[in-house]
Amino acid sequence: MLFDKCKTMSPERIQAIPIPDFPVVEPDGNLVKLILQTFETSKIDLENGDIIVIASKVVSLAENRIVSATDVEPSEKALEIASKNNFDPIHVELAIRESVDILRTEGVLITETPSGLICNFSGVDKSNAPEGKYLLLPSNPDSSASQYLKSLMNSTGKKLAIIISDTQGRPWRKGSVNLAIGCAGIAPFKYNKGKKDLYGRVLERSTVCQIDEIAMLAEPLMGQAGKRVPVVIVRGYAYSASEETARDINRPKHEDLFR
Amino acid sequence: MLFDKCKTMSPERIQAIPIPDFPVVEPDGNLVKLILQTFETSKIDLENGDIIVIASKVVSLAENRIVSATDVEPSEKALEIASKNNFDPIHVELAIRESVDILRTEGVLITETPSGLICNFSGVDKSNAPEGKYLLLPSNPDSSASQYLKSLMNSTGKKLAIIISDTQGRPWRKGSVNLAIGCAGIAPFKYNKGKKDLYGRVLERSTVCQIDEIAMLAEPLMGQAGKRVPVVIVRGYAYSASEETARDINRPKHEDLFR
Repeated sequence: MLFDKCKTMSPERIQAIPIPDFPVVEPDGNLVKLILQTFETSKIDLENGDIIVIASKVVSLAENRIVSATDVEPSEKALEIASKNNFDPIHVELAIRESVDILRTEGVLITETPSGLICNFSGVDKSNAPEGKYLLLPSNPDSSASQYLKSLMNSTGKKLAIIISDTQGRPWRKGSVNLAIGCAGIAPFKYNKGKKDLYGRVLERSTVCQIDEIAMLAEPLMGQAGKRVPVVIVRGYAYSASEETARDINRPKHEDLFR
Repeated sequence: MLFDKCKTMSPERIQAIPIPDFPVVEPDGNLVKLILQTFETSKIDLENGDIIVIASKVVSLAENRIVSATDVEPSEKALEIASKNNFDPIHVELAIRESVDILRTEGVLITETPSGLICNFSGVDKSNAPEGKYLLLPSNPDSSASQYLKSLMNSTGKKLAIIISDTQGRPWRKGSVNLAIGCAGIAPFKYNKGKKDLYGRVLERSTVCQIDEIAMLAEPLMGQAGKRVPVVIVRGYAYSASEETARDINRPKHEDLFR
Protein backbone atom coordinates (compact mmCIF):
# COMPACT_ATOMS: atom_id res chain seq x y z
CA MET A 1 0.00 0.00 0.00
CA LEU A 2 1.53 3.23 -1.17
CA PHE A 3 -0.07 6.39 -0.05
CA ASP A 4 -0.89 9.57 -1.82
CA LYS A 5 0.72 12.18 0.30
CA CYS A 6 1.26 15.78 0.99
CA LYS A 7 -1.17 17.19 -1.53
CA THR A 8 -0.50 20.77 -0.59
CA MET A 9 3.07 20.62 -1.83
CA SER A 10 5.30 18.66 -4.13
CA PRO A 11 4.47 14.98 -3.55
CA GLU A 12 8.15 14.14 -3.72
CA ARG A 13 9.10 16.08 -0.61
CA ILE A 14 9.36 14.53 2.81
CA GLN A 15 8.43 16.64 5.82
CA ALA A 16 9.00 16.24 9.54
CA ILE A 17 6.44 18.16 11.56
CA PRO A 18 6.95 18.63 15.30
CA ILE A 19 4.00 18.59 17.68
CA PRO A 20 4.70 21.49 20.03
CA ASP A 21 3.74 21.90 23.70
CA PHE A 22 3.29 18.25 24.52
CA PRO A 23 2.12 17.92 28.14
CA VAL A 24 4.16 16.13 30.79
CA VAL A 25 3.21 12.47 30.64
CA GLU A 26 2.12 11.09 34.01
CA PRO A 27 2.70 7.45 34.97
CA ASP A 28 -0.17 5.30 33.72
CA GLY A 29 -1.30 8.18 31.53
CA ASN A 30 -3.28 7.56 28.36
CA LEU A 31 -0.69 8.44 25.72
CA VAL A 32 -3.02 8.18 22.73
CA LYS A 33 -5.48 10.56 24.38
CA LEU A 34 -2.66 13.06 25.01
CA ILE A 35 -1.47 12.77 21.40
CA LEU A 36 -4.97 13.36 20.04
CA GLN A 37 -5.51 16.33 22.35
CA THR A 38 -2.19 17.87 21.32
CA PHE A 39 -2.98 17.42 17.62
CA GLU A 40 -6.26 19.25 18.25
CA THR A 41 -4.67 22.12 20.19
CA SER A 42 -1.96 22.48 17.53
CA LYS A 43 -4.58 22.41 14.77
CA ILE A 44 -2.72 19.60 13.05
CA ASP A 45 -4.85 17.47 10.76
CA LEU A 46 -3.48 14.01 10.19
CA GLU A 47 -3.32 12.78 6.61
CA ASN A 48 -3.42 9.23 5.27
CA GLY A 49 0.10 7.87 5.26
CA ASP A 50 1.39 10.00 8.13
CA ILE A 51 3.98 8.27 10.28
CA ILE A 52 3.87 9.24 13.94
CA VAL A 53 7.26 8.95 15.62
CA ILE A 54 7.03 8.76 19.41
CA ALA A 55 10.04 9.09 21.73
CA SER A 56 10.36 5.99 23.92
CA LYS A 57 10.65 8.21 27.02
CA VAL A 58 6.97 9.15 26.97
CA VAL A 59 5.98 5.55 26.23
CA SER A 60 7.99 4.45 29.28
CA LEU A 61 6.39 7.16 31.42
CA ALA A 62 2.87 6.28 30.26
CA GLU A 63 3.57 2.58 30.89
CA ASN A 64 4.90 3.37 34.35
CA ARG A 65 8.35 1.91 33.61
CA ILE A 66 9.78 3.96 36.48
CA VAL A 67 11.85 2.57 39.33
CA SER A 68 12.76 4.39 42.54
CA ALA A 69 16.40 4.26 43.64
CA THR A 70 15.21 3.34 47.13
CA ASP A 71 13.60 0.14 45.83
CA VAL A 72 16.83 -1.25 44.33
CA GLU A 73 19.50 -3.26 46.14
CA PRO A 74 22.57 -3.58 43.87
CA SER A 75 23.87 -7.15 43.52
CA GLU A 76 27.54 -8.03 43.98
CA LYS A 77 28.00 -8.16 40.23
CA ALA A 78 26.50 -4.67 39.88
CA LEU A 79 28.73 -3.33 42.66
CA GLU A 80 31.79 -4.81 40.96
CA ILE A 81 31.01 -3.33 37.51
CA ALA A 82 30.07 0.01 39.11
CA SER A 83 33.22 0.15 41.20
CA LYS A 84 35.67 -0.54 38.36
CA ASN A 85 34.00 2.07 36.11
CA ASN A 86 32.87 4.63 38.67
CA PHE A 87 29.25 4.01 37.63
CA ASP A 88 26.14 4.45 39.77
CA PRO A 89 25.57 0.92 41.25
CA ILE A 90 21.77 1.24 41.10
CA HIS A 91 21.95 2.20 37.43
CA VAL A 92 24.15 -0.85 36.78
CA GLU A 93 21.84 -3.14 38.75
CA LEU A 94 18.81 -2.03 36.74
CA ALA A 95 20.73 -2.44 33.48
CA ILE A 96 21.61 -6.01 34.46
CA ARG A 97 18.01 -6.80 35.44
CA GLU A 98 16.80 -5.42 32.11
CA SER A 99 19.29 -7.53 30.10
CA VAL A 100 19.52 -11.06 28.74
CA ASP A 101 23.25 -10.80 27.94
CA ILE A 102 26.16 -8.55 28.95
CA LEU A 103 28.65 -7.79 26.15
CA ARG A 104 31.15 -5.25 27.50
CA THR A 105 31.79 -3.72 30.91
CA GLU A 106 34.86 -1.55 30.34
CA GLY A 107 33.95 2.14 30.35
CA VAL A 108 30.53 1.20 29.00
CA LEU A 109 27.89 -1.34 29.94
CA ILE A 110 26.77 -2.84 26.66
CA THR A 111 23.93 -5.31 27.08
CA GLU A 112 21.29 -7.10 25.07
CA THR A 113 17.72 -6.38 26.14
CA PRO A 114 14.91 -8.99 26.07
CA SER A 115 13.70 -7.56 22.75
CA GLY A 116 17.16 -8.07 21.24
CA LEU A 117 18.40 -4.48 21.26
CA ILE A 118 22.12 -4.10 21.95
CA CYS A 119 22.72 -0.86 23.79
CA ASN A 120 24.38 0.89 26.71
CA PHE A 121 22.89 0.22 30.19
CA SER A 122 19.94 -1.67 28.62
CA GLY A 123 18.56 1.76 27.75
CA VAL A 124 17.89 2.52 31.44
CA ASP A 125 17.83 6.31 31.72
CA LYS A 126 18.47 8.69 34.58
CA SER A 127 17.93 11.86 32.54
CA ASN A 128 14.32 12.60 31.75
CA ALA A 129 13.20 10.58 34.78
CA PRO A 130 11.81 12.22 37.91
CA GLU A 131 14.45 12.93 40.62
CA GLY A 132 15.72 9.78 42.32
CA LYS A 133 14.05 7.59 39.71
CA TYR A 134 15.14 5.58 36.67
CA LEU A 135 13.27 5.14 33.43
CA LEU A 136 13.31 1.67 31.84
CA LEU A 137 12.68 1.07 28.12
CA PRO A 138 9.12 0.03 27.21
CA SER A 139 8.92 -3.72 27.84
CA ASN A 140 7.55 -4.54 24.37
CA PRO A 141 7.78 -1.51 22.07
CA ASP A 142 6.36 -3.33 19.03
CA SER A 143 3.29 -4.29 21.00
CA SER A 144 2.92 -0.74 22.39
CA ALA A 145 3.17 0.66 18.85
CA SER A 146 0.54 -1.79 17.67
CA GLN A 147 -1.91 -0.85 20.44
CA TYR A 148 -1.43 2.90 19.89
CA LEU A 149 -1.88 2.49 16.15
CA LYS A 150 -5.16 0.66 16.49
CA SER A 151 -6.46 3.30 18.85
CA LEU A 152 -5.24 6.27 16.74
CA MET A 153 -6.64 4.85 13.51
CA ASN A 154 -9.98 4.18 15.18
CA SER A 155 -10.16 7.74 16.48
CA THR A 156 -9.02 9.50 13.31
CA GLY A 157 -10.20 7.23 10.50
CA LYS A 158 -6.81 7.69 8.82
CA LYS A 159 -4.31 5.08 7.66
CA LEU A 160 -1.27 5.75 9.83
CA ALA A 161 1.93 4.13 11.04
CA ILE A 162 3.79 4.42 14.34
CA ILE A 163 7.47 4.24 15.17
CA ILE A 164 8.77 4.30 18.75
CA SER A 165 12.29 5.72 18.81
CA ASP A 166 15.16 5.83 21.27
CA THR A 167 18.53 7.57 21.19
CA GLN A 168 21.44 5.12 21.02
CA GLY A 169 25.21 5.11 20.58
CA ARG A 170 27.06 3.09 17.94
CA PRO A 171 30.11 0.83 18.27
CA TRP A 172 32.37 2.50 15.68
CA ARG A 173 30.90 5.93 15.30
CA LYS A 174 30.84 8.67 17.90
CA GLY A 175 27.65 10.53 18.73
CA SER A 176 24.28 8.97 19.26
CA VAL A 177 21.43 8.78 16.80
CA ASN A 178 17.74 8.01 17.03
CA LEU A 179 16.80 4.39 16.29
CA ALA A 180 13.47 2.60 15.89
CA ILE A 181 12.78 0.19 18.76
CA GLY A 182 9.11 -0.43 17.96
CA CYS A 183 6.83 -0.10 14.95
CA ALA A 184 3.34 -0.78 13.64
CA GLY A 185 1.72 -0.23 10.25
CA ILE A 186 5.09 0.13 8.53
CA ALA A 187 7.64 -2.51 7.49
CA PRO A 188 11.05 -2.16 9.18
CA PHE A 189 12.86 -2.80 5.91
CA LYS A 190 12.53 -1.87 2.28
CA TYR A 191 14.02 -4.34 -0.15
CA ASN A 192 15.64 -3.28 -3.39
CA LYS A 193 15.99 -6.87 -4.56
CA GLY A 194 15.23 -7.18 -8.23
CA LYS A 195 15.45 -3.42 -8.78
CA LYS A 196 18.00 -2.04 -11.19
CA ASP A 197 21.14 -0.05 -10.54
CA LEU A 198 22.23 3.10 -12.36
CA TYR A 199 23.45 0.97 -15.27
CA GLY A 200 20.23 -1.01 -15.63
CA ARG A 201 21.58 -4.19 -14.04
CA VAL A 202 19.45 -6.02 -11.49
CA LEU A 203 20.72 -5.42 -7.95
CA GLU A 204 21.61 -8.63 -6.17
CA ARG A 205 20.32 -7.49 -2.83
CA SER A 206 19.91 -4.27 -0.97
CA THR A 207 17.96 -3.99 2.24
CA VAL A 208 17.46 -0.60 3.84
CA CYS A 209 16.26 -0.21 7.42
CA GLN A 210 13.65 2.42 6.69
CA ILE A 211 12.23 2.77 10.20
CA ASP A 212 15.68 3.64 11.59
CA GLU A 213 15.96 6.27 8.88
CA ILE A 214 12.56 7.70 9.76
CA ALA A 215 13.43 7.73 13.47
CA MET A 216 16.54 9.77 12.63
CA LEU A 217 14.52 12.08 10.45
CA ALA A 218 12.42 12.94 13.51
CA GLU A 219 15.30 13.36 15.96
CA PRO A 220 16.37 16.91 15.05
CA LEU A 221 12.90 18.10 16.04
CA MET A 222 12.44 15.96 19.14
CA GLY A 223 15.99 15.63 20.33
CA GLN A 224 16.54 19.05 21.76
CA ALA A 225 16.87 18.60 25.49
CA GLY A 226 14.15 20.14 27.62
CA LYS A 227 12.04 21.06 24.61
CA ARG A 228 9.24 18.56 25.12
CA VAL A 229 8.70 17.49 21.53
CA PRO A 230 8.28 13.75 22.03
CA VAL A 231 5.99 13.33 19.03
CA VAL A 232 6.83 14.15 15.40
CA ILE A 233 4.79 13.51 12.27
CA VAL A 234 6.68 12.37 9.18
CA ARG A 235 4.71 13.10 6.03
CA GLY A 236 5.39 12.30 2.40
CA TYR A 237 7.32 9.09 3.00
CA ALA A 238 6.06 6.23 0.81
CA TYR A 239 6.04 2.90 2.63
CA SER A 240 4.33 -0.42 2.93
CA ALA A 241 3.47 -2.59 5.93
CA SER A 242 4.69 -6.14 6.62
CA GLU A 243 4.57 -8.87 9.22
CA GLU A 244 8.05 -7.91 10.38
CA THR A 245 8.51 -5.58 13.34
CA ALA A 246 11.33 -3.57 14.91
CA ARG A 247 12.42 -6.67 16.86
CA ASP A 248 13.42 -8.24 13.52
CA ILE A 249 16.08 -5.56 13.03
CA ASN A 250 18.26 -7.07 15.73
CA ARG A 251 20.70 -9.63 14.38
CA PRO A 252 20.36 -13.03 16.06
CA LYS A 253 23.35 -14.02 18.20
CA HIS A 254 24.69 -16.57 15.71
CA GLU A 255 24.91 -13.85 13.07
CA ASP A 256 26.73 -11.49 15.42
CA LEU A 257 30.43 -11.32 14.58
CA PHE A 258 31.28 -8.77 17.23
CA ARG A 259 29.97 -10.23 20.45
CA MET B 1 25.58 30.52 13.22
CA LEU B 2 21.94 29.57 13.07
CA PHE B 3 20.14 30.25 9.87
CA ASP B 4 16.74 31.63 9.15
CA LYS B 5 15.12 28.95 7.14
CA CYS B 6 12.24 27.93 5.04
CA LYS B 7 10.43 31.26 4.95
CA THR B 8 7.63 30.01 2.75
CA MET B 9 6.42 27.57 5.39
CA SER B 10 6.57 26.95 9.10
CA PRO B 11 10.16 27.57 10.17
CA GLU B 12 10.03 24.53 12.43
CA ARG B 13 9.57 22.03 9.64
CA ILE B 14 12.41 20.15 8.02
CA GLN B 15 12.18 19.30 4.34
CA ALA B 16 14.13 16.96 2.09
CA ILE B 17 13.95 18.04 -1.54
CA PRO B 18 15.16 15.67 -4.27
CA ILE B 19 16.91 17.03 -7.35
CA PRO B 20 15.35 15.08 -10.21
CA ASP B 21 16.91 14.03 -13.53
CA PHE B 22 20.52 14.25 -12.49
CA PRO B 23 22.73 13.44 -15.51
CA VAL B 24 25.08 10.47 -15.61
CA VAL B 25 28.37 11.60 -14.10
CA GLU B 26 31.33 10.93 -16.36
CA PRO B 27 34.78 10.17 -14.95
CA ASP B 28 36.66 13.40 -14.29
CA GLY B 29 33.39 15.32 -14.67
CA ASN B 30 32.87 18.64 -12.96
CA LEU B 31 30.35 17.69 -10.29
CA VAL B 32 29.69 21.21 -9.04
CA LYS B 33 28.90 22.37 -12.59
CA LEU B 34 26.46 19.46 -13.00
CA ILE B 35 24.79 20.26 -9.66
CA LEU B 36 24.38 23.93 -10.59
CA GLN B 37 23.00 23.05 -14.03
CA THR B 38 20.50 20.61 -12.51
CA PHE B 39 19.34 23.17 -9.96
CA GLU B 40 18.74 25.57 -12.83
CA THR B 41 16.83 23.05 -14.98
CA SER B 42 14.72 22.04 -11.97
CA LYS B 43 14.06 25.68 -11.12
CA ILE B 44 15.31 25.12 -7.58
CA ASP B 45 16.51 28.24 -5.81
CA LEU B 46 18.95 27.55 -3.05
CA GLU B 47 18.31 29.29 0.27
CA ASN B 48 20.75 30.26 3.00
CA GLY B 49 21.20 27.32 5.32
CA ASP B 50 20.42 24.63 2.73
CA ILE B 51 22.38 21.43 3.24
CA ILE B 52 23.27 19.62 0.03
CA VAL B 53 23.59 15.87 0.51
CA ILE B 54 25.56 14.16 -2.27
CA ALA B 55 25.73 10.38 -2.74
CA SER B 56 29.34 9.20 -2.63
CA LYS B 57 28.80 7.25 -5.88
CA VAL B 58 28.73 10.40 -7.99
CA VAL B 59 31.71 11.85 -6.11
CA SER B 60 33.65 8.65 -6.87
CA LEU B 61 32.64 8.80 -10.52
CA ALA B 62 33.58 12.47 -10.86
CA GLU B 63 36.91 11.78 -9.14
CA ASN B 64 37.56 8.83 -11.44
CA ARG B 65 37.78 6.34 -8.58
CA ILE B 66 37.06 3.54 -11.02
CA VAL B 67 39.15 0.39 -11.45
CA SER B 68 38.89 -2.12 -14.28
CA ALA B 69 38.76 -5.80 -13.35
CA THR B 70 41.42 -6.47 -15.98
CA ASP B 71 43.90 -4.23 -14.15
CA VAL B 72 43.72 -6.16 -10.88
CA GLU B 73 45.75 -9.24 -9.93
CA PRO B 74 44.34 -10.75 -6.72
CA SER B 75 46.98 -11.45 -4.05
CA GLU B 76 47.19 -14.79 -2.24
CA LYS B 77 45.46 -13.30 0.77
CA ALA B 78 42.62 -12.06 -1.43
CA LEU B 79 42.28 -15.46 -3.10
CA GLU B 80 42.13 -17.16 0.29
CA ILE B 81 39.42 -14.84 1.69
CA ALA B 82 37.49 -15.05 -1.60
CA SER B 83 37.67 -18.82 -1.71
CA LYS B 84 36.43 -19.47 1.82
CA ASN B 85 33.48 -17.06 1.38
CA ASN B 86 32.71 -17.54 -2.29
CA PHE B 87 33.50 -13.86 -2.90
CA ASP B 88 34.77 -12.27 -6.12
CA PRO B 89 38.61 -12.30 -5.68
CA ILE B 90 39.05 -8.96 -7.47
CA HIS B 91 36.48 -7.33 -5.22
CA VAL B 92 38.35 -8.72 -2.20
CA GLU B 93 41.72 -7.56 -3.54
CA LEU B 94 40.46 -4.01 -4.03
CA ALA B 95 38.89 -4.01 -0.55
CA ILE B 96 42.26 -5.04 0.92
CA ARG B 97 44.12 -2.36 -1.06
CA GLU B 98 41.64 0.27 0.13
CA SER B 99 42.02 -0.74 3.80
CA VAL B 100 44.38 -0.03 6.67
CA ASP B 101 43.02 -2.87 8.85
CA ILE B 102 40.94 -6.02 8.35
CA LEU B 103 38.48 -6.82 11.14
CA ARG B 104 36.39 -9.82 10.04
CA THR B 105 36.53 -12.18 7.07
CA GLU B 106 33.74 -14.67 7.82
CA GLY B 107 30.77 -14.14 5.51
CA VAL B 108 31.64 -10.44 5.40
CA LEU B 109 34.82 -8.45 4.77
CA ILE B 110 34.83 -5.76 7.42
CA THR B 111 37.75 -3.37 7.03
CA GLU B 112 38.91 0.03 8.19
CA THR B 113 39.52 2.53 5.40
CA PRO B 114 42.31 5.15 5.45
CA SER B 115 39.77 7.77 6.59
CA GLY B 116 38.82 5.58 9.56
CA LEU B 117 35.49 4.29 8.31
CA ILE B 118 34.71 0.70 9.33
CA CYS B 119 32.64 -0.95 6.63
CA ASN B 120 32.13 -3.97 4.39
CA PHE B 121 34.62 -4.39 1.50
CA SER B 122 36.15 -0.95 2.23
CA GLY B 123 33.09 0.47 0.51
CA VAL B 124 34.27 -0.83 -2.88
CA ASP B 125 31.15 -1.17 -5.02
CA LYS B 126 30.27 -3.30 -8.01
CA SER B 127 26.71 -2.03 -8.37
CA ASN B 128 26.48 1.45 -9.83
CA ALA B 129 29.86 1.03 -11.55
CA PRO B 130 30.18 0.55 -15.30
CA GLU B 131 30.28 -3.12 -16.42
CA GLY B 132 33.52 -4.89 -15.47
CA LYS B 133 34.54 -2.01 -13.23
CA TYR B 134 34.62 -1.29 -9.52
CA LEU B 135 33.90 1.98 -7.79
CA LEU B 136 36.14 2.95 -4.86
CA LEU B 137 35.05 5.40 -2.13
CA PRO B 138 36.26 8.98 -2.61
CA SER B 139 39.81 9.10 -1.27
CA ASN B 140 39.19 12.07 1.03
CA PRO B 141 35.48 12.83 1.30
CA ASP B 142 35.94 15.70 3.79
CA SER B 143 38.31 17.42 1.41
CA SER B 144 35.97 16.83 -1.56
CA ALA B 145 33.06 18.30 0.43
CA SER B 146 35.16 21.31 1.32
CA GLN B 147 36.16 21.97 -2.32
CA TYR B 148 32.59 21.59 -3.58
CA LEU B 149 31.28 23.88 -0.84
CA LYS B 150 33.70 26.66 -1.68
CA SER B 151 32.78 26.43 -5.33
CA LEU B 152 29.00 26.25 -4.74
CA MET B 153 29.01 29.17 -2.30
CA ASN B 154 31.07 31.27 -4.72
CA SER B 155 28.63 30.54 -7.54
CA THR B 156 25.41 31.03 -5.60
CA GLY B 157 26.30 33.62 -2.95
CA LYS B 158 24.43 31.51 -0.37
CA LYS B 159 25.62 30.09 2.93
CA LEU B 160 25.43 26.34 2.41
CA ALA B 161 26.72 23.07 3.81
CA ILE B 162 27.62 19.80 2.13
CA ILE B 163 27.39 16.20 3.32
CA ILE B 164 28.73 13.29 1.27
CA SER B 165 26.80 10.13 2.13
CA ASP B 166 27.26 6.41 1.62
CA THR B 167 25.04 3.42 2.36
CA GLN B 168 26.47 1.15 5.06
CA GLY B 169 25.51 -1.87 7.13
CA ARG B 170 25.64 -2.01 10.92
CA PRO B 171 27.07 -4.67 13.23
CA TRP B 172 23.98 -5.42 15.34
CA ARG B 173 21.16 -4.17 13.22
CA LYS B 174 20.00 -5.60 9.91
CA GLY B 175 19.45 -3.38 6.91
CA SER B 176 21.74 -0.65 5.73
CA VAL B 177 21.36 3.07 6.30
CA ASN B 178 22.88 6.19 4.81
CA LEU B 179 25.86 7.60 6.74
CA ALA B 180 27.90 10.77 6.37
CA ILE B 181 31.45 10.09 5.17
CA GLY B 182 32.37 13.69 4.38
CA CYS B 183 31.16 17.14 5.36
CA ALA B 184 31.87 20.87 5.04
CA GLY B 185 30.16 23.92 6.50
CA ILE B 186 28.35 21.85 9.12
CA ALA B 187 29.62 20.35 12.38
CA PRO B 188 29.39 16.54 12.56
CA PHE B 189 28.05 16.68 16.11
CA LYS B 190 25.66 18.73 18.13
CA TYR B 191 26.34 18.82 21.83
CA ASN B 192 23.60 19.00 24.40
CA LYS B 193 26.08 19.49 27.22
CA GLY B 194 24.82 22.05 29.71
CA LYS B 195 21.30 21.89 28.31
CA LYS B 196 18.45 20.82 30.55
CA ASP B 197 16.40 17.65 30.52
CA LEU B 198 12.61 17.45 30.76
CA TYR B 199 12.84 17.97 34.52
CA GLY B 200 15.05 21.06 34.30
CA ARG B 201 18.26 19.30 35.36
CA VAL B 202 21.46 19.98 33.45
CA LEU B 203 22.32 17.05 31.15
CA GLU B 204 25.70 15.55 31.88
CA ARG B 205 26.53 14.93 28.28
CA SER B 206 24.69 14.15 25.11
CA THR B 207 26.34 14.19 21.73
CA VAL B 208 24.26 13.60 18.63
CA CYS B 209 25.83 12.80 15.27
CA GLN B 210 23.76 15.26 13.27
CA ILE B 211 25.37 14.68 9.88
CA ASP B 212 24.55 10.96 10.04
CA GLU B 213 20.97 11.91 10.81
CA ILE B 214 20.84 14.31 7.87
CA ALA B 215 22.37 11.70 5.55
CA MET B 216 19.58 9.30 6.57
CA LEU B 217 17.00 12.00 6.07
CA ALA B 218 18.11 12.23 2.44
CA GLU B 219 18.27 8.48 1.76
CA PRO B 220 14.57 7.80 1.14
CA LEU B 221 14.73 10.21 -1.78
CA MET B 222 18.11 9.17 -3.18
CA GLY B 223 18.18 5.53 -2.23
CA GLN B 224 15.83 4.13 -4.79
CA ALA B 225 17.91 2.01 -7.11
CA GLY B 226 18.13 3.21 -10.68
CA LYS B 227 16.35 6.45 -9.91
CA ARG B 228 19.32 8.77 -10.35
CA VAL B 229 18.67 11.12 -7.44
CA PRO B 230 22.20 11.46 -6.11
CA VAL B 231 21.66 14.99 -4.76
CA VAL B 232 19.09 16.02 -2.16
CA ILE B 233 18.62 19.40 -0.47
CA VAL B 234 17.77 19.38 3.23
CA ARG B 235 16.08 22.62 4.24
CA GLY B 236 14.95 23.92 7.62
CA TYR B 237 17.60 22.15 9.69
CA ALA B 238 19.30 24.54 12.14
CA TYR B 239 23.01 23.85 12.47
CA SER B 240 26.38 25.37 13.13
CA ALA B 241 29.81 24.73 11.63
CA SER B 242 32.95 23.57 13.47
CA GLU B 243 36.53 22.54 12.90
CA GLU B 244 35.52 18.90 13.18
CA THR B 245 34.78 16.85 10.06
CA ALA B 246 33.20 13.49 9.21
CA ARG B 247 36.54 11.80 9.85
CA ASP B 248 36.14 12.70 13.55
CA ILE B 249 33.05 10.50 13.79
CA ASN B 250 35.15 7.35 13.59
CA ARG B 251 36.25 6.08 16.98
CA PRO B 252 40.03 5.75 17.31
CA LYS B 253 41.26 2.16 17.63
CA HIS B 254 42.04 2.43 21.35
CA GLU B 255 38.40 3.40 22.03
CA ASP B 256 37.08 0.49 19.97
CA LEU B 257 35.78 -2.29 22.20
CA PHE B 258 34.63 -4.53 19.37
CA ARG B 259 37.65 -4.91 17.15
